[in-house]
Amino acid sequence: MKSKIDYTLYLCTDRKLMTTNTIEECVELAVIGGCTVVQLREKECSSLEFYNLALRVKEITDRYKVPLIINDRIDIALAVDAAGVHVGQSDLPPAVVRKIIGEDKILGVSASSLSEAVKAQEDGADYLGVGAMYSTATKTDAEIVTMEQLKEIRRAVDIPIVVIGGINKNTVCNFKGLGIDGLAVVSAVVAQKDISAASRELIKLFKDL
Amino acid sequence: MKSKIDYTLYLCTDRKLMTTNTIEECVELAVIGGCTVVQLREKECSSLEFYNLALRVKEITDRYKVPLIINDRIDIALAVDAAGVHVGQSDLPPAVVRKIIGEDKILGVSASSLSEAVKAQEDGADYLGVGAMYSTATKTDAEIVTMEQLKEIRRAVDIPIVVIGGINKNTVCNFKGLGIDGLAVVSAVVAQKDISAASRELIKLFKDL
Repeated sequence: MKSKIDYTLYLCTDRKLMTTNTIEECVELAVIGGCTVVQLREKECSSLEFYNLALRVKEITDRYKVPLIINDRIDIALAVDAAGVHVGQSDLPPAVVRKIIGEDKILGVSASSLSEAVKAQEDGADYLGVGAMYSTATKTDAEIVTMEQLKEIRRAVDIPIVVIGGINKNTVCNFKGLGIDGLAVVSAVVAQKDISAASRELIKLFKDL
Repeated sequence: MKSKIDYTLYLCTDRKLMTTNTIEECVELAVIGGCTVVQLREKECSSLEFYNLALRVKEITDRYKVPLIINDRIDIALAVDAAGVHVGQSDLPPAVVRKIIGEDKILGVSASSLSEAVKAQEDGADYLGVGAMYSTATKTDAEIVTMEQLKEIRRAVDIPIVVIGGINKNTVCNFKGLGIDGLAVVSAVVAQKDISAASRELIKLFKDL
């Protein structure tokens, strides 16, 4: 059975933005700080390296009872029995992914427009990652979603929405009253000196919205 | 049910070695020439591009009743319902792959030593790709398997063996009497001017061994 996920603080890993910690250390510190979901994203390594890393990260997320989501690679998600997968618009189509993973695993889909969001929900997405809300160093070519578009998407779909792209302690306040379910963060957590404190602060800011 | 595969001429695609044809054209010409298995290998493109290409190639291989094997990406293989997958030593471990794909899909494993070959068979491989037999432009860093090692591997495992790495019309004769089940080729087919004729010639040479 798919359990209900708390999307409040959704951490996406990015090896390139980490300076002082390994991915495992970073994930553990973020989870200690209250991070509620972890998405592991690796684009450069071999399948075996991704698999071994995912096993090590899942050992941590399991210990803290936080769901682990694997980006793009459905096979890695199945191999480590992750809680779910997240696909972008250049990955396997959501409807195809749903057939492979079954009903019990979480399926997240990136959407940067109303039509992508509606299609993703129709195709079986459990939640949406909507963005990029702001231009970021992580994905320099990402399409920007306006606040007006975000509101339209929120009205059009009823699955949870996490916002992504330039989400940090200075931008969280802009999402007040928009009915979003969580913040997806990369550098606002992984590139910070105190990862746990950064996580705690973002959660507090979100809950105070 | 897993059907019995004819491994005689096992084509591995390689986009970089193709000059005059698309992958789809190349596969069709090779299959017309008698190629008995097609392995699709893509390392550079997005999952969506790989998926769409695999669908187009499978349409061809289905038409000619030739099994399609996907390299490394178990998720792509499941998404297009390919006949099977092939993993190298840097990909997901064979025993993990077997759990994901079930008993009905073919699992091929690359082995460049006796221990890798024995382990692969123990872990559920249906066939082995043994090589590189010669140094090649396709995989410049590949470990070379000697004829003596190939004989040892042949004695140690009872699953089919295809040899790979520098297999072409000049080297086929070296495999006489070694009990191998087929030739895995890349440039000896895909980089040839007449792909069908090159396939036919290799098959004849192998059958005459």
